[in-house]
Amino acid sequence: MTAATITYHQERAERTRAQILRRAVDIASAEGLEGVSIGRLATELAMSKTGVFAHFGSKEDLQVAIVEMAGDVFVAEVVEPVQTSPRGIPLLSALLQSWLSYVERIVFRGGCFFAAASAEFDSRPGPVRDKIVELTKAWVVGLENEVKEAQRLNQLSRKADPHQVVFELHAFVQEANWAFKLFDDKTSFARARSAITRRIAAEQTGKPTDGRRTGE
Amino acid sequence: MTAATITYHQERAERTRAQILRRAVDIASAEGLEGVSIGRLATELAMSKTGVFAHFGSKEDLQVAIVEMAGDVFVAEVVEPVQTSPRGIPLLSALLQSWLSYVERIVFRGGCFFAAASAEFDSRPGPVRDKIVELTKAWVVGLENEVKEAQRLNQLSRKADPHQVVFELHAFVQEANWAFKLFDDKTSFARARSAITRRIAAEQTGKPTDGRRTGE
Repeated sequence: MTAATITYHQERAERTRAQILRRAVDIASAEGLEGVSIGRLATELAMSKTGVFAHFGSKEDLQVAIVEMAGDVFVAEVVEPVQTSPRGIPLLSALLQSWLSYVERIVFRGGCFFAAASAEFDSRPGPVRDKIVELTKAWVVGLENEVKEAQRLNQLSRKADPHQVVFELHAFVQEANWAFKLFDDKTSFARARSAITRRIAAEQTGKPTDGRRTGE
Repeated sequence: MTAATITYHQERAERTRAQILRRAVDIASAEGLEGVSIGRLATELAMSKTGVFAHFGSKEDLQVAIVEMAGDVFVAEVVEPVQTSPRGIPLLSALLQSWLSYVERIVFRGGCFFAAASAEFDSRPGPVRDKIVELTKAWVVGLENEVKEAQRLNQLSRKADPHQVVFELHAFVQEANWAFKLFDDKTSFARARSAITRRIAAEQTGKPTDGRRTGE
């Protein structure tokens, strides 16, 4: 094979792998990572079992790859669309609204993939749990860093504990996801938005700078 | 058999059934309701499969019975110990603290059974999901009723929306359970307690009555 042919085959394999994983994330969000099987993916994607299996060495490899794909989708759907928001409170609020919107517009039919996956794997040590912890923690730390940035910009009181504030803000979005999925209660999104606004306002200094991105 | 013998056999059967279910709730809290099988229960309880199976008609019947048992344990561990608290804010706070304590002292190794079960079944219609919804909803409504009672007693502002307040308070406990289970983060309990105290204080009228139980 020529180098061009090899590249073509590699690209095609990567596209197929991504296609399989995207479907797998959707199934896992609703029925759990344990609900995803090679056989089911093959049926749903009209592929051969061998064809699906060739992309993943084991069930555990497949599960880790599903979590990674869910992380990529989260970044693309939640984080990237708001990256031009001014730093501090505007970006913090935009990230939380964007996360709520991703649940509300049902990107995955099971709601927030990471809420479902963490409930499923929190008591099962191993590489799948480790990957869920790593990506979930990165999101929490990202939110905490934005609270700290808002404090640096004098938008939020420096007396506020960023861990505590993010614990509460993060709780409101997870609660909305929970109530929406379990009770089919769409008012939960308005409740979460109201709670987020109130909680941020409680720590506001009243003299925010505009947080525009400058060459820091 | 005499009536006394029949009663003896019935009582023994009920004790065995409760013993099976208690173990099943523990497994389900950590590994999901789908992780519970007749075979596994038989092994863990050193019983025959037939012996376990005789108490439950089907897997679905077993799952519904597990949810009901988890509800009984929740009432016994969380609700009953604080039932003598004065009505209004004291009882509301006591219920939330009691719920946190039940997670913190690891009554079930998977944390809050209902958090795990709702994430597992929220996308699966049927009698198991219906039972989870029924019992979870009853708990939320119970908390809302206590907020209303606190308003009636002039402990909490009547302008507060009981649904909104309970949405937030409930979120803090669920977040603590989530962070504890996923990150093994015990500081999450202190964060939840601090958030609950602040949130209730924000609606306090400053002129509470003592909420003692009177013959209403």
